[in-house]
Amino acid sequence: MSRIAGRNHLYVPGPTNTPERILRAMVVPQEDHRSPKFPELALSVLTDLKKVFKTTEGTIFTFPASGTGMWEAALTNTLSPGDKILCSRFGQFSHLWADMAQRMGFEVQVLDCEWGTGVPYDQYEEILRADKEHKIKAVLACQNETATGVTSDIGRVRKAINNANHPALLMVDTVSSLVSIDFRMDEWGVDCAVSGSQKGFMLPAGMGILGVSPKALKAMETATSRRCYFDLGDMLKNNATGYFPYTPSIPMLYGMRESLNTIFEEGLENIFARHNYLASGVRAAVQEGWKLNLCAKAPEWYSDTVSAILVPEGFDATKVISNAYAKYNLSLGAGLSKVAGKVFRIGHLGDLNALSLMSAIAGAEMSMLDNGINVTPGSGVAAASTYWRTHAPQAK
Amino acid sequence: MSRIAGRNHLYVPGPTNTPERILRAMVVPQEDHRSPKFPELALSVLTDLKKVFKTTEGTIFTFPASGTGMWEAALTNTLSPGDKILCSRFGQFSHLWADMAQRMGFEVQVLDCEWGTGVPYDQYEEILRADKEHKIKAVLACQNETATGVTSDIGRVRKAINNANHPALLMVDTVSSLVSIDFRMDEWGVDCAVSGSQKGFMLPAGMGILGVSPKALKAMETATSRRCYFDLGDMLKNNATGYFPYTPSIPMLYGMRESLNTIFEEGLENIFARHNYLASGVRAAVQEGWKLNLCAKAPEWYSDTVSAILVPEGFDATKVISNAYAKYNLSLGAGLSKVAGKVFRIGHLGDLNALSLMSAIAGAEMSMLDNGINVTPGSGVAAASTYWRTHAPQAK
Amino acid sequence: MSRIAGRNHLYVPGPTNTPERILRAMVVPQEDHRSPKFPELALSVLTDLKKVFKTTEGTIFTFPASGTGMWEAALTNTLSPGDKILCSRFGQFSHLWADMAQRMGFEVQVLDCEWGTGVPYDQYEEILRADKEHKIKAVLACQNETATGVTSDIGRVRKAINNANHPALLMVDTVSSLVSIDFRMDEWGVDCAVSGSQKGFMLPAGMGILGVSPKALKAMETATSRRCYFDLGDMLKNNATGYFPYTPSIPMLYGMRESLNTIFEEGLENIFARHNYLASGVRAAVQEGWKLNLCAKAPEWYSDTVSAILVPEGFDATKVISNAYAKYNLSLGAGLSKVAGKVFRIGHLGDLNALSLMSAIAGAEMSMLDNGINVTPGSGVAAASTYWRTHAPQAK
Amino acid sequence: MSRIAGRNHLYVPGPTNTPERILRAMVVPQEDHRSPKFPELALSVLTDLKKVFKTTEGTIFTFPASGTGMWEAALTNTLSPGDKILCSRFGQFSHLWADMAQRMGFEVQVLDCEWGTGVPYDQYEEILRADKEHKIKAVLACQNETATGVTSDIGRVRKAINNANHPALLMVDTVSSLVSIDFRMDEWGVDCAVSGSQKGFMLPAGMGILGVSPKALKAMETATSRRCYFDLGDMLKNNATGYFPYTPSIPMLYGMRESLNTIFEEGLENIFARHNYLASGVRAAVQEGWKLNLCAKAPEWYSDTVSAILVPEGFDATKVISNAYAKYNLSLGAGLSKVAGKVFRIGHLGDLNALSLMSAIAGAEMSMLDNGINVTPGSGVAAASTYWRTHAPQAK
Repeated sequence: MSRIAGRNHLYVPGPTNTPERILRAMVVPQEDHRSPKFPELALSVLTDLKKVFKTTEGTIFTFPASGTGMWEAALTNTLSPGDKILCSRFGQFSHLWADMAQRMGFEVQVLDCEWGTGVPYDQYEEILRADKEHKIKAVLACQNETATGVTSDIGRVRKAINNANHPALLMVDTVSSLVSIDFRMDEWGVDCAVSGSQKGFMLPAGMGILGVSPKALKAMETATSRRCYFDLGDMLKNNATGYFPYTPSIPMLYGMRESLNTIFEEGLENIFARHNYLASGVRAAVQEGWKLNLCAKAPEWYSDTVSAILVPEGFDATKVISNAYAKYNLSLGAGLSKVAGKVFRIGHLGDLNALSLMSAIAGAEMSMLDNGINVTPGSGVAAASTYWRTHAPQAK
Repeated sequence: MSRIAGRNHLYVPGPTNTPERILRAMVVPQEDHRSPKFPELALSVLTDLKKVFKTTEGTIFTFPASGTGMWEAALTNTLSPGDKILCSRFGQFSHLWADMAQRMGFEVQVLDCEWGTGVPYDQYEEILRADKEHKIKAVLACQNETATGVTSDIGRVRKAINNANHPALLMVDTVSSLVSIDFRMDEWGVDCAVSGSQKGFMLPAGMGILGVSPKALKAMETATSRRCYFDLGDMLKNNATGYFPYTPSIPMLYGMRESLNTIFEEGLENIFARHNYLASGVRAAVQEGWKLNLCAKAPEWYSDTVSAILVPEGFDATKVISNAYAKYNLSLGAGLSKVAGKVFRIGHLGDLNALSLMSAIAGAEMSMLDNGINVTPGSGVAAASTYWRTHAPQAK
Repeated sequence: MSRIAGRNHLYVPGPTNTPERILRAMVVPQEDHRSPKFPELALSVLTDLKKVFKTTEGTIFTFPASGTGMWEAALTNTLSPGDKILCSRFGQFSHLWADMAQRMGFEVQVLDCEWGTGVPYDQYEEILRADKEHKIKAVLACQNETATGVTSDIGRVRKAINNANHPALLMVDTVSSLVSIDFRMDEWGVDCAVSGSQKGFMLPAGMGILGVSPKALKAMETATSRRCYFDLGDMLKNNATGYFPYTPSIPMLYGMRESLNTIFEEGLENIFARHNYLASGVRAAVQEGWKLNLCAKAPEWYSDTVSAILVPEGFDATKVISNAYAKYNLSLGAGLSKVAGKVFRIGHLGDLNALSLMSAIAGAEMSMLDNGINVTPGSGVAAASTYWRTHAPQAK
Repeated sequence: MSRIAGRNHLYVPGPTNTPERILRAMVVPQEDHRSPKFPELALSVLTDLKKVFKTTEGTIFTFPASGTGMWEAALTNTLSPGDKILCSRFGQFSHLWADMAQRMGFEVQVLDCEWGTGVPYDQYEEILRADKEHKIKAVLACQNETATGVTSDIGRVRKAINNANHPALLMVDTVSSLVSIDFRMDEWGVDCAVSGSQKGFMLPAGMGILGVSPKALKAMETATSRRCYFDLGDMLKNNATGYFPYTPSIPMLYGMRESLNTIFEEGLENIFARHNYLASGVRAAVQEGWKLNLCAKAPEWYSDTVSAILVPEGFDATKVISNAYAKYNLSLGAGLSKVAGKVFRIGHLGDLNALSLMSAIAGAEMSMLDNGINVTPGSGVAAASTYWRTHAPQAK
């Protein structure tokens, strides 16, 4: 395929743009993962990841795998075949996790919610209260549903469980939220926090990251699900001295080390504030500029990492996306499953600033105009620009 | 840790040295793995990998995982809980695969062989002949046992199965042999060929590669082992159009593309010949120069990718290795499990030439001398040099 | 200095953005520049550079130097102390070349023109006609004055010389025009064409490039200016077999090889068309959107590689630039010398597309608004977007 | 040209092997060299380079140029046409500098010395004593003659000048010695110290580095040699605030920053000790192992950065080199000019350790044997190995 001049403008909600300094840190020769020097790197990464999950009690695991693998690791290491799981479905990724749980042999109670909303906190509480025999062993929650741009409040999920005084494990998908939206593993009592390298960590895909609470580690002892590659026991034993049970990716470890350096330099809270600030500008472009709607039904659900934008009735969002790619070298996220053709998505997470997003806003607008969608030229940029000029990121 | 001047000399049998051009090919910005352009890359990799496995009938799968994950994928996609497996154990890696099979719930018959020998072809045939009811569903074989430097003849394993007229699937671990030692998936009727990126492919670890025969794909339809992350069905469906069910590592795909380019430029048969030529020189250093023994018991078992060298009685191979690392920045492979302390290993696979190995030979010799082992200074290099100067790589 | 999240948006008119593939091509180990293999690279670069200069008769030289060094090489290799030179000054770079000529001991006639205009073709002709004794040995012309965003027509300079029937050498500064704006060394009878790596070639600075006509090479034989590092004779002798008189930069050579590959893939004429297309959009933003003026006085002078934009009376362009850098991580070009504080510059050359420039336009607008300059929010992007959506690049 | 498997073994005395971390540091996007942030980098490099030259009084300049350019800069910035220069010639590089001085219009007194010896200290003193009128304005000395592997004692050159009580400037070529062999700009009263990036700094070629004493800066005020690109005045003015008069190479600046980090981490004195230690092992291989002679006539001249090795009468060193390259992918330095065909050179400077050099020693030996030169197989490695095993680097 012939070269298109200029850079690709990447605004899918993952993989995100890898900063040059992280890209650079990954250009390393291979090295012996059994050397006396190796644990220095491995342990520093495993230890510092705790800060990102906001846990001191938990243990962090990394696997050569995608985030999907961590969904599986969370389930098989803590549960036994036939165990009951409570979860909710309101987008493609909450759907896929529920689906996996069924395929892995668990009994899954799925609450179907309207796409554009998130975890049904009250319904969770109700069901857990009703589960007097504590048959439900795990509660699943997707902190950020990437397909619809919906963020749920994990603190409220914890409260629902606590209100029901229920011992179920709380498992949270943080793939498209960690390091971008506040996540508090210890405070919220999260037992398994599933994540991956290619979103907030700004790395290529390929490192699955899993935060595990002491309670979940204890559950592991009696969990009889078959597992080997994703077995936390093997990992725990080897990690203790700074090694891995099988060959890790050397570039990914160095990349993660540099990602963590980057994160700590900016500061986690500053990063969250920046994501909120950038997301607010994008939402201003969509709502005040273009007069369009988000897929997320209400402000409480708005995601600071991705916005799913509904095109007006009668238009095909798929064409907006394909035209943007072919004509402007702009990669937007597609609508998936139920919202296919209805939304296009702008990922606004990772290593971005306001002017980066201007390309996405201007390009999306141009592609909508090319497709006959009636938005005012320049309106998106004007609204975002006004927001960004008159506000500043606010760390909480 | 302070800098040691000069490069690390990496001669563990994996990860192997990544050539500059492959390292370079991996320095890529992230990109949308759902873009219209993406399949071009993905399909070219999946298709060209077939040539490396010497298969036209088989299907190649790649996963964000290490080779260990592919062991699991091979087993769980084709077998059902309780299925009987025949395998042999003569080193740490053949041991680990057998161990995994047990943990994943299969009934495993393990033939323990002397470390330094390989697959017991005749015993396999005998057992398979005796299995009139065809309870054995899979036969496992490790083409190259990395721990002892032993290569088995997979063609003879196939012959044993055929002689017994047995329908079991043949599963082969090619992790430390593929692209270095001849492997013929179709000709030898291999049903699952397990491999990884960090040996003959000269890439970092992180891409698991699995070759699957039509027969194994058919077995998948009835195999009831729980699987999701490693499910070949999901992969097959997505791969059909050049996509993956979850986010792949963009750098690893570009790296594999460049690895394949490199391989085809040199030519598979030339690569095998080069590995044999280089290994022969290393063996000359060990046997003719140093007057030491290989762990491999007889020439028929000699591996062209790694040599495990027995230190004389009364000496500790571990000290040879740690001293080589600390004093000469040389990474040698350690003895594992049964041969811990008894052998050190020189990996001679991947992107190497004769002079590269001279560093390993000279360094191992220096470290042996430092440890009081009585070898003649310069003898290893002299023997290797004589071999290499008077022979040329012979492609078959 | 602490990290600013997201990329720097680089729109100075050089160094320009280096495409990833060129950056990647430069990650090379050092190599022996006297090896038998080296000439393959060197000769391919020197030969292919001719296509970029549109010369078959000329010779291309490369030096480890910036473009400034090539100004000196052009002068000292072809002229003798006291030789008379005709040139014009209408911006910082035409000024610096004239200044160098004086410092190097030549007798320089400088025609001062209004900044915002270019080479005074008729005045050149007049002066050359008057120079009956042909005391003027060289005529200098700056094809693209980077400081003011003014492009002169080198074909008309040639015509002026021809009309005067004058034998003077024609020396052209193409630093910020080559590979972006059409240049025809042979057709226009250019004797010395001065260029550098960090603009249209999209490389880092550090390689000076000089195109030399047979006539200029002949002049070299009698030119008595002192020179050694920049001596074309030494270079010519070594280049003949593919070598250099002193150690060249290996990464820059590989980078230039990849730059040329990139250029030929897109096609020189397509590149010129793209630059015109992109520049037209930027000018639409300035003139139709913001209602501001360019420094360039008339369309005939408009540069397709850089636009110098006049801020309204009473405002300080320097503050627009420093605020853009500090607040939006946007690098704009400053006004130099006579236009300092009066203009800011947007470089629109090299590896760019429309959406890249949207960041520059949106950012410049935001910074003007922050400084109290009364432009309509979104107006620049709207005008550029309309231009780009309704036009296509036109290769001539 | 088809790929040769494995790395090239680079042992020419420059460019030297660039460590991965420096290579990595150079993979940077371009940036505005006029930005407010830029001086941070530029000033840190210019300041820290002083430590490497061991000067507090001097000023360091860097140019986009090779070391050859710095020869010219030293001469033209401090001398006037016709000024008298005293120098000595005992190899290709001392020859070239003398030749340049003549071509640039100075009156050069060249003392021809036997190749294999170095600066004739006593003769220098004698001539300077005799120059009662102080017509000699500059004394040139090549600290390390790369062509013959000869190091001269610059302290003794200073003593010769002082003994003669002569005011001439002392100019020293440190291209292949700086950062590898002790150099003391202030203590030895060196007025111009010429260097380049591609030897001890372990960078690609392309950055010329020049140390200038206050006395030489004063001489600049009256020196009338024509200069512009290499004018120190322009540079001084711009450097004062952390900028450059023309576009510098961004990657080279970041590379130099990382080179300096590397140097300070290991420690200058430790680096000198390591170079002496490594050189001693190579000399043991040559003299004790192979029973061959160095081009350097006596131990006082032995260079710690490069050894020129004389092949026995009747053999052609050129063939040893070309065969080593073609057959073993080993790059050795060729004999130049008077010693062409008589010597091959092993560069042992930069980022090297003992095992790196084992490849060079083993490869040179193999190539000599291939060419019929009667050396004992393994003898070079044995001698070097014994030296290295029984000695340790000694920082003075």
